[in-house]
Amino acid sequence: MKKTDRLIIYISGKDQKGIVASVSDYLYRRSFNITELDQFNDPFSESFFMRLEFSYENTVLDIEEFNISFSKEVTNKLNLNWEIKPSQNITPIIIMVSLADHCLNDLIYRIKSKELNAEVKAVISNHETLKQSVELHNIPFYYLPVTDLNRQQQEKELIEIYKKSKSELLVLARYMQVLSEETTKFFKGKAINIHHSFLPGFKGGKPYHQAYRRGVKMIGATAHYITSDLDEGPIIDQEVIKVNHSMNPEKLIFMGKYIESLVLTRAVRLHLDQRVFLNDARTVVFD
Amino acid sequence: MKKTDRLIIYISGKDQKGIVASVSDYLYRRSFNITELDQFNDPFSESFFMRLEFSYENTVLDIEEFNISFSKEVTNKLNLNWEIKPSQNITPIIIMVSLADHCLNDLIYRIKSKELNAEVKAVISNHETLKQSVELHNIPFYYLPVTDLNRQQQEKELIEIYKKSKSELLVLARYMQVLSEETTKFFKGKAINIHHSFLPGFKGGKPYHQAYRRGVKMIGATAHYITSDLDEGPIIDQEVIKVNHSMNPEKLIFMGKYIESLVLTRAVRLHLDQRVFLNDARTVVFD
Amino acid sequence: MKKTDRLIIYISGKDQKGIVASVSDYLYRRSFNITELDQFNDPFSESFFMRLEFSYENTVLDIEEFNISFSKEVTNKLNLNWEIKPSQNITPIIIMVSLADHCLNDLIYRIKSKELNAEVKAVISNHETLKQSVELHNIPFYYLPVTDLNRQQQEKELIEIYKKSKSELLVLARYMQVLSEETTKFFKGKAINIHHSFLPGFKGGKPYHQAYRRGVKMIGATAHYITSDLDEGPIIDQEVIKVNHSMNPEKLIFMGKYIESLVLTRAVRLHLDQRVFLNDARTVVFD
Amino acid sequence: MKKTDRLIIYISGKDQKGIVASVSDYLYRRSFNITELDQFNDPFSESFFMRLEFSYENTVLDIEEFNISFSKEVTNKLNLNWEIKPSQNITPIIIMVSLADHCLNDLIYRIKSKELNAEVKAVISNHETLKQSVELHNIPFYYLPVTDLNRQQQEKELIEIYKKSKSELLVLARYMQVLSEETTKFFKGKAINIHHSFLPGFKGGKPYHQAYRRGVKMIGATAHYITSDLDEGPIIDQEVIKVNHSMNPEKLIFMGKYIESLVLTRAVRLHLDQRVFLNDARTVVFD
Repeated sequence: MKKTDRLIIYISGKDQKGIVASVSDYLYRRSFNITELDQFNDPFSESFFMRLEFSYENTVLDIEEFNISFSKEVTNKLNLNWEIKPSQNITPIIIMVSLADHCLNDLIYRIKSKELNAEVKAVISNHETLKQSVELHNIPFYYLPVTDLNRQQQEKELIEIYKKSKSELLVLARYMQVLSEETTKFFKGKAINIHHSFLPGFKGGKPYHQAYRRGVKMIGATAHYITSDLDEGPIIDQEVIKVNHSMNPEKLIFMGKYIESLVLTRAVRLHLDQRVFLNDARTVVFD
Repeated sequence: MKKTDRLIIYISGKDQKGIVASVSDYLYRRSFNITELDQFNDPFSESFFMRLEFSYENTVLDIEEFNISFSKEVTNKLNLNWEIKPSQNITPIIIMVSLADHCLNDLIYRIKSKELNAEVKAVISNHETLKQSVELHNIPFYYLPVTDLNRQQQEKELIEIYKKSKSELLVLARYMQVLSEETTKFFKGKAINIHHSFLPGFKGGKPYHQAYRRGVKMIGATAHYITSDLDEGPIIDQEVIKVNHSMNPEKLIFMGKYIESLVLTRAVRLHLDQRVFLNDARTVVFD
Repeated sequence: MKKTDRLIIYISGKDQKGIVASVSDYLYRRSFNITELDQFNDPFSESFFMRLEFSYENTVLDIEEFNISFSKEVTNKLNLNWEIKPSQNITPIIIMVSLADHCLNDLIYRIKSKELNAEVKAVISNHETLKQSVELHNIPFYYLPVTDLNRQQQEKELIEIYKKSKSELLVLARYMQVLSEETTKFFKGKAINIHHSFLPGFKGGKPYHQAYRRGVKMIGATAHYITSDLDEGPIIDQEVIKVNHSMNPEKLIFMGKYIESLVLTRAVRLHLDQRVFLNDARTVVFD
Repeated sequence: MKKTDRLIIYISGKDQKGIVASVSDYLYRRSFNITELDQFNDPFSESFFMRLEFSYENTVLDIEEFNISFSKEVTNKLNLNWEIKPSQNITPIIIMVSLADHCLNDLIYRIKSKELNAEVKAVISNHETLKQSVELHNIPFYYLPVTDLNRQQQEKELIEIYKKSKSELLVLARYMQVLSEETTKFFKGKAINIHHSFLPGFKGGKPYHQAYRRGVKMIGATAHYITSDLDEGPIIDQEVIKVNHSMNPEKLIFMGKYIESLVLTRAVRLHLDQRVFLNDARTVVFD
């Protein structure tokens, strides 16, 4: 295996005494140095979550061997879920869009400038409008239109593209179609959507028009993992912006674009950095 | 009348050409100097709102005379509602509370330190708990307990105290009882409530517990004029604060206190400075 | 002249009574409808600033005629500076960059998506690095390298390109060279720079390294008009972001990118919307 | 010793492998449960900082015994500094003020309402103005005027009051006198000051007047530990607020009050919760 500087271990499971001791003792015995450690014990769900970065020098680390050894000596005994990953790993992702491109543009720019450790394997859309501008960036574009009749087939194609490209994350960057329950199950914890309202306010359609009618003084956007229950997925991040009486729905939509792309990019970064854990209907985010 | 430096004119009505010209021409002819002017034409309701500060020197202004003259020459012709008020006017107010005192404390401190141009004529509560600390500030405290049977009588007493003290604003500083439709009508545009959620999210009871269960990443508070439809009054101001997975409902309540008092005080200040207009179910705020 | 819906008048000069009356009366007589009005009397410099939007219907407005008539009947008498401009005007601009492209990218995206009413006539750089990505957008790219010897000549070429393209604004989007006093005078009130610190903190080189050493808990960015006195130009907008002890200078630079592009784009929008006035060493911004 | 639910351990020293392992293993062997753990390795100073909360049940913990045992088995070997403290400990503090009372009022209110785990042992001022309002809260008030001649004596009295009351923190809540080098050394890491500017901007006198003249679009406040080098102490927290051209220095002072009390209270809370470490001229804050 290629030598990397840092690895991230990502652990969750039932809370119990001795997890930190067991993990840190293991790493110490192998002469690794813990450089960052976040942990959270949820007293309600009695769950434990830990994210840990460690470095090593003058060693060639055999990840296969580490996997076997760490499982045997630490996590199997404590019955914990875990994963390990190099901290600079490039994650293959798929982005879905409809017509609006502000979130897509921000993601592509952040990826190009290495602010996000990802590679866009494909952009999928139910419209052809953004084909040209996506292909300009040498990213494959798939036009998969949706009707009530072909929805099942369309989602099958999505999953095929996702699997074939070995993608590990699906980003719904203002994709305006609902995915079926089956598909959302397939993508559990692996698909992030941007909702153009400050959930749980203004669920449903035309949230900026709703916000205008209600006369709120702030509008917001919410990035969340998708679930079959629309607008109810576990929230990763939220952001708001002040608005006032003089702004009509069109102006709110315009201002909303800015926080939508901001909060979606931030949520994708948190996910790629392995800082987000699912905790039932909520998330644990080590920011 | 005592000489003041600045006066505020506050105008609203049906939008039409020539309002600014008519008002500013009148003031110019009388040698007044406009120092601040905010106006808004709502294209949906076709309403016009204007707030205007002007100064005068070397003159004794007779407000009675001004009232008659300005009505005759400007607002009657254009069929506008208007008011005039010295900019440093001290407004008499009533505050209602239940048990929590964080909003009350902030209001009293801001008033004492002249940050709010108000005088607290009375604090009314359905509990006796805060009696002593209110009276320490030499403010009359009225204990008006509420039961399902005496509610009508209790609100009658509230209105009596309000009228007798010539108060012009009622502030519900975490008063946890619903007022009757009649009473809310009496206080239309004259009573500000603080709601401990970022409306329209988490209406109803225990909003911080709702926020915890939903796993939001920001909580908020909303100051609004009261209406008979609870949680639906015209919003004056809102504020949010970031929260995270580690915060249980008690911690959220604790953090919420801070933004509740902040946003209520800010809304009261905007109202006292005559910067808020009712515009049906919404407000116009010249910030 | 082509019929437009809205026009912006932009007035400044010595403060005096009757300006609002005179302007609004003129517009009223011509049956124009004021839709937005901001004014500010600076009591220190005794200056007056006004921005006014008005609409007209069923009329063909002859701007030439308006210019003559408005000057004669309003501004000449009051000795005021003024300009008029259609509110949806596309402003031709020049952007200068060195190596970093985050601000450039944000500006180009906002212009493409019509969030900024501008057209980029040229991108000028002292490096060739960004040539290809600029030309992808069909924008002319000029490589004008700078040495101590050719600086005068280089700035001459800049001014030529600016004039030839009839540009009205120069945006220094992380251009890392100082312009001469003469050139800054030429661009007075017409060139916006982004400074990567929260001025007046951390003037001079490597502000993020300075911020790290000082251990600040927030970093910032400042957009300002350029003057010969570096880091001292009139500030248009500023923004900050929270940072913490764990962030090294590289991480601060990374986080700074985000607010730099945000605040520069915001300042350019304010300028293009004619919302910024120079007031000696400061600005008046009608936000 | 009285049974408490949670204890905080606070460790710092030279970074080295095995600290987390050693500490967590010790706690595990004694059946304590780690409920919160923050650590930071500063790669520049090669220092290590850790804050750890743990809980215990069905045990009576003898802190004396714990001190000896933990030192022997963990920190002595690794040559670390450490402290232990019950998480709900009430810290005795002294507050110093001059004339402005907004920070003092906020601190007292937060302490009364249990938002800050502190007890005010004394308020010391170089003016008598606030005597009455402090004594209303049953807090001893010391009037210690300062002249160039008596400064040494005055600071001696301050230290005596501090020692006699067994205080552990000194809060300079808008105390407008400079303390001598000797006194600042005595209070190293134990005295928090609020500076009414966004350091390092606007050092020295009248920062709001400086901010006005410079035309900044945001003003700020900074809470820091005091050092002999004025305005240069390690920063604990900072906050800003947007301002605009219409605000004169008096208005800026008024708006500044709000963030001054906010940021000072926040810094005091972080300190009382043992979340702040000194790291040479900077701080590590586990927020």
